[in-house]
Amino acid sequence: LVNELEIIELIRKRFSVPQVTVGETAGIATDRQNRILKGIGDDTAVISPPKYPILYTTDMMVEGIHFDLAFISPFELGYKLVARNVSDIFAMAGEPEFLLLNLCLPFNRKRKIENFLASFLDGIDECLKRYNIRLVGGDFSSSPDRIFLSATLTGTSPSPVFRSGARPGDFIYVTGTIGDSACGLEILKRKAKLPSEIITPLVKKHLRPEPEPVHKKVSRLNAMIDISDGLAIDLWRLCTESSVGALLYEDKIPVSRELKEAASLMDLDILSLVLSGGEDYELLFTADDLIREPGLTEIGVIKEKPDMEIMGSDGVVRPLRPEGYIHSGNF
Amino acid sequence: LVNELEIIELIRKRFSVPQVTVGETAGIATDRQNRILKGIGDDTAVISPPKYPILYTTDMMVEGIHFDLAFISPFELGYKLVARNVSDIFAMAGEPEFLLLNLCLPFNRKRKIENFLASFLDGIDECLKRYNIRLVGGDFSSSPDRIFLSATLTGTSPSPVFRSGARPGDFIYVTGTIGDSACGLEILKRKAKLPSEIITPLVKKHLRPEPEPVHKKVSRLNAMIDISDGLAIDLWRLCTESSVGALLYEDKIPVSRELKEAASLMDLDILSLVLSGGEDYELLFTADDLIREPGLTEIGVIKEKPDMEIMGSDGVVRPLRPEGYIHSGNF
Repeated sequence: LVNELEIIELIRKRFSVPQVTVGETAGIATDRQNRILKGIGDDTAVISPPKYPILYTTDMMVEGIHFDLAFISPFELGYKLVARNVSDIFAMAGEPEFLLLNLCLPFNRKRKIENFLASFLDGIDECLKRYNIRLVGGDFSSSPDRIFLSATLTGTSPSPVFRSGARPGDFIYVTGTIGDSACGLEILKRKAKLPSEIITPLVKKHLRPEPEPVHKKVSRLNAMIDISDGLAIDLWRLCTESSVGALLYEDKIPVSRELKEAASLMDLDILSLVLSGGEDYELLFTADDLIREPGLTEIGVIKEKPDMEIMGSDGVVRPLRPEGYIHSGNF
Repeated sequence: LVNELEIIELIRKRFSVPQVTVGETAGIATDRQNRILKGIGDDTAVISPPKYPILYTTDMMVEGIHFDLAFISPFELGYKLVARNVSDIFAMAGEPEFLLLNLCLPFNRKRKIENFLASFLDGIDECLKRYNIRLVGGDFSSSPDRIFLSATLTGTSPSPVFRSGARPGDFIYVTGTIGDSACGLEILKRKAKLPSEIITPLVKKHLRPEPEPVHKKVSRLNAMIDISDGLAIDLWRLCTESSVGALLYEDKIPVSRELKEAASLMDLDILSLVLSGGEDYELLFTADDLIREPGLTEIGVIKEKPDMEIMGSDGVVRPLRPEGYIHSGNF
């Protein structure tokens, strides 16, 4: 059995990094590692300032609200906690840099806490390495019952892209395919017995999202947001901030072959998974130009009238509402 | 009754600030407000980088672990969540700058959530104004039961002071008086009936800590830490990071008149409140020089041998152990 101080010591040792003295990095340092003047182990982390604007995002994951350990492993939970925040940094056209972590873990599950923590930290570490992020501090507490997690991620961008830059006439794009994560969750909840080549990619999209940036591929981004709560509500947020409206083409929204097959076998409504499923961690952005890039799909157009519409396969245009039950959200 | 989206909207409106465009602040901006290129309402906050190193700290407050609403009001809870983090920034000789907030509030107490939130945000706001901090983002979630709070605070310092800089021969100083907060909590828990001129300052120290920086008063600080878990354990942390030991003089530790009176009336051990009470949010630091400043008290000396000792009123030197039950801590 371990106690709280031992857990804090374990985390410290695992994520401690060699640090440089303040004098060595006079001026603006560029290398991430060399910018850590003090990492884990003091009252605060101390970081050399970046050259460009700093990005800050924070996200919570609460047991019983955002996850259920019956469906997600401790490793995947750690990975996803970081990846969700990475998605927000990419949505500003930024590079992720430094992470702070808050862990509140129950001690009345004592026999399992060491195992949980080891796998959870492995998942955190895997995602940190994947995106070249450094853990520079955090807080640990015992919990009376539930697991409560939060993470704050910093980033930097020479030219951040806001939600508010969409203009009438812009084309609307998304990365990847939409709805897979929600379908993956549904498969987990129903313990659905489907062929593994269908299940695996959908469930992976839910448990281990892999956000990818677009700002290196596309230079002229007018507005951007990540799709975390669902395509419809996140598009509505972008439109609201930009004081514009949008018209989507249902047939153009990229849907994976696996989602189509799973929806058919499980009798799920594809459009509803796509529009309000959430947790895609894909990017939604607008641009003046027509872009032809693998992995980017044009799905509609920004219009002046501030409402949202969708044209169905039948050519009929219907109102598009920002639906979906939202139990949490950033402010 | 309000729902989650309405709460997020309420927080957004309350803490939204006018923002400047990226072009207006080319180069390094100095004014805090003008450095907010994007505050609340996008995927991330966007902040112009400071000239000096950036400080990051994060802290959790969990209902049933860190607080009990029977003893602390929502206003004080909001205030204290921010103040705890301010204390960490001051402990590095820094100025606090920008805050990110995570709120997880139960909706099964629906009738009370609006009232709770209004007072809680008032408390946050009061502390933000007190220390000239700007709220630039956060995350809100409903909770299945308990209140979970966390906050990440940024700061900046031209010359951060670490825990690791103490050298043998340094004098050890503390700000303010020690043990008041722990005594205040004891008064609340026991619902002790003492004269109000004794209760008020002690309870206030617990519910509404007011961290004060020392780096503007004292120029040559060798090492510093804030006293959050107790004088003994926090001194031990400073000594460990500096690879030194310490000798304290019991009679020199500053104890308030109110604490002495309350301890006598309630039959509490003063030394135990002082050494392991915690939540003082005073600063403990070491310096080469003898300092004579109101509000700063020399309490001992740093020694080479890496153990801790305390000399009692009787002149006898005894070992000083880093005691106290720690249910949480920073890493």
